[in-house]
Amino acid sequence: MSRITSVSTRDVRFPTSRERHGSDAMNPSPDYSAAYVEITTDADDGHVGAGFVFTIGRGNEVQAAAVDALSAGLVGQDAEALCADLGGTWRSLVHDSQFRWLGPEKGVMHMAIGAVVNALWDLRAKRAGLPLWELLAGLTPEEIADLVDFRYLSDALTRDEALELLRAAEPGRAERRQALLDHGFPAYTTTPGWLGYDDERLIARCREAVADGFTQIKLKVGGDLEEDVRRLRLARETVGAGIAIAVDANQRWDVDEAVAWIERLTPFGLAWVEEPTSPDDVLGHAEIARRIAPVPVATGEHMPNRVVAKQLIQAGAVSVLQIDATRVAGVNENIAILLLAAKHGVRVCPHAGGVGLCEAVQHLSMFDRIAVSGTDQGRYLEYVDHLHEHFVTPVDVHDGRYWPPSAPGAGAEMLATSLTAYAYPGGPVWAEAEADAETDAQPEGTPDGRAEETPGRVGAVPTP
Amino acid sequence: MSRITSVSTRDVRFPTSRERHGSDAMNPSPDYSAAYVEITTDADDGHVGAGFVFTIGRGNEVQAAAVDALSAGLVGQDAEALCADLGGTWRSLVHDSQFRWLGPEKGVMHMAIGAVVNALWDLRAKRAGLPLWELLAGLTPEEIADLVDFRYLSDALTRDEALELLRAAEPGRAERRQALLDHGFPAYTTTPGWLGYDDERLIARCREAVADGFTQIKLKVGGDLEEDVRRLRLARETVGAGIAIAVDANQRWDVDEAVAWIERLTPFGLAWVEEPTSPDDVLGHAEIARRIAPVPVATGEHMPNRVVAKQLIQAGAVSVLQIDATRVAGVNENIAILLLAAKHGVRVCPHAGGVGLCEAVQHLSMFDRIAVSGTDQGRYLEYVDHLHEHFVTPVDVHDGRYWPPSAPGAGAEMLATSLTAYAYPGGPVWAEAEADAETDAQPEGTPDGRAEETPGRVGAVPTP
Repeated sequence: MSRITSVSTRDVRFPTSRERHGSDAMNPSPDYSAAYVEITTDADDGHVGAGFVFTIGRGNEVQAAAVDALSAGLVGQDAEALCADLGGTWRSLVHDSQFRWLGPEKGVMHMAIGAVVNALWDLRAKRAGLPLWELLAGLTPEEIADLVDFRYLSDALTRDEALELLRAAEPGRAERRQALLDHGFPAYTTTPGWLGYDDERLIARCREAVADGFTQIKLKVGGDLEEDVRRLRLARETVGAGIAIAVDANQRWDVDEAVAWIERLTPFGLAWVEEPTSPDDVLGHAEIARRIAPVPVATGEHMPNRVVAKQLIQAGAVSVLQIDATRVAGVNENIAILLLAAKHGVRVCPHAGGVGLCEAVQHLSMFDRIAVSGTDQGRYLEYVDHLHEHFVTPVDVHDGRYWPPSAPGAGAEMLATSLTAYAYPGGPVWAEAEADAETDAQPEGTPDGRAEETPGRVGAVPTP
Repeated sequence: MSRITSVSTRDVRFPTSRERHGSDAMNPSPDYSAAYVEITTDADDGHVGAGFVFTIGRGNEVQAAAVDALSAGLVGQDAEALCADLGGTWRSLVHDSQFRWLGPEKGVMHMAIGAVVNALWDLRAKRAGLPLWELLAGLTPEEIADLVDFRYLSDALTRDEALELLRAAEPGRAERRQALLDHGFPAYTTTPGWLGYDDERLIARCREAVADGFTQIKLKVGGDLEEDVRRLRLARETVGAGIAIAVDANQRWDVDEAVAWIERLTPFGLAWVEEPTSPDDVLGHAEIARRIAPVPVATGEHMPNRVVAKQLIQAGAVSVLQIDATRVAGVNENIAILLLAAKHGVRVCPHAGGVGLCEAVQHLSMFDRIAVSGTDQGRYLEYVDHLHEHFVTPVDVHDGRYWPPSAPGAGAEMLATSLTAYAYPGGPVWAEAEADAETDAQPEGTPDGRAEETPGRVGAVPTP
């Protein structure tokens, strides 16, 4: 047995808004950030459980405060017991009535629970010497079902139905595991499509994507309709008919507006339309889906919990469900969502990008492929080629595919040097920015001549 | 012109869990709390804008941290300009893309915006020398529409439709204002119905409620079915056929469970069934509503925003919409919800109780009665007789009705002595509790002999 000795948080921010590569219709200037959690124990193995909530800047300290609030209930507890019964641990955190009031089961407090749950999964996987996907894919159907809270789900998925599905997938696990190791998991790239890119850059990135082996790209839309039509035509001409193109409106439209806008884009062939309206608007998504059919609607990166996921599926509002590693209450709740999707035949194409989201969410898709849905048909993991260098185990993406990580853990652990450099507000990157700001007369957000010399300004910047 | 000089927060908690009067099926031991906001300016008038978020204990510091995060963007700004264009102010706060990521438009960050918005309304009302309800009811239809963000609402309510509705209500305003002053606003009481009450207490409180002029009471249910049947029978026998009885399950059930449970309670005559399932489950509520018809479904105290309110109405999931003063982003978003309800003929019976919720939400119902829906038919304001003594302008409820406040402001201002006494964790009430805990061998939550001597233990305790 070992005791949890600390649950500590760090406010880590990357000054990505300085470059504005990641511009979309709703998020013009994100500073990709993490409320980063480290769970330490008194065990001799030295393992630290790492988790985080991804945010885009201001308010990251609120997210960190929410994790801190959970710390008092965890320090001193038996780490083995918590990790051995992560279903029970999840319930005890999510059902705490006082914390629950702050959501319930949504927003800052729920995401904080997710970070803690994910850090415990990271610790468990490290102790087991397995990458998370492999740990999960080795659990029995009963063990998997025990991880899920079926409250509020039983009208769409019961525990028995989940077990049936998991048992049906059991015989093929070994074969699918091998297939995953041999062929990886399909990816698509969002890199070409930032709203702020000029035509030259758009074309160059489209060509690169195809050359890199991607069979699907994604473009941001929703700023200006004529511009969207023009950019989409250009992209289609560049990649040809054989490459799928998805578009992402980042919640920009109301229902009628969405339908009218999408009508103009449909002739270019849309793999899906992502986040056409408010992420809370199940009925709005359903109405849009009905009116733009057969163009698929995708959403989910901002759905707060499994209850909204359930309704998106029940209402026929979504053809492509986009789970996010840090929006809901961690691995357990995402397993509930994977089970819901599998039962109802909805494909899951996770949201990733930001900082660390690719590293974290790949484990869930790989687990799903082996032990839940049992397929990668029509499934794509989102990929954005940025900020991976800050992780101990960065993703391995090549030939248009994610290749399964072999390092033990859940993928969330960041490099100590990055944690120090990007600490907010005290880290050197931000102290330097402060100093720059005092002597720099250029408007905020405009890249200056020193852009390439500052760590935070190296490389392009993803959009969430 | 005056500048905002500070936006300060206080963590104020009442140790209400010690008495357990407020027990319900989901919240066994709430410590009613407020993340309390004060906005000060450099104006000579000395007015301070007060607002708060109601929470039930742990995590109140996270809620306060969220308000603190907003402070940097407000201090130094022109208070008159912010108050004169509260629609614009609301948008600038809610649409801040970095903060928005933490919801979006839900949970801790959204409620923090609500507290700030409400504090600005309090400031504006104090400067105008009017109670908030009267200030709002004196605005033109255009001014009211300007307060509302119609984004994501246009499939259920456009600005033009809102204007039409407001203009139609305009001619009768003076008459309805007078009727409100003369007759008050109907209330119902939740005091008799705590789950933890024994029969004697239940009967006594039921009798008191009738004697006090209430025509509706509410009982908590969802713990144990046979107990619920027994208590409901007892209550019905006590109050007679002429008093309406609503029941509140506080999100306890899944869909099938709700329907089966309610079937057993229906013979006793139910005014409504409140929060039968997850507050996010629009489709679940709709299914329950369909199957228990004609018994009305009530919900809304935990709906995170106007988008969920819209869907509850669109789906026919709710007959009684229960707005809450501090769950959404303040007065403006509640006006959007009042307009949605009025357009679609859904009656609004606000959630109140907790600490300060009665003081705050009454202004919205009174405004609605005069200038929006134009009626109080079937509308009841929830009332719980506790913790009002901590407010500068406590509610005036007698003869089963709320009587309109005349004091300038939005009702949220707490007494300085209460703010000091209940400050957490440093205030004397909590320091005393700490000292008690060290010498007190009684189990947590059990009232001890000194209950009546400790400020936090005075009086009974409401449930949210």
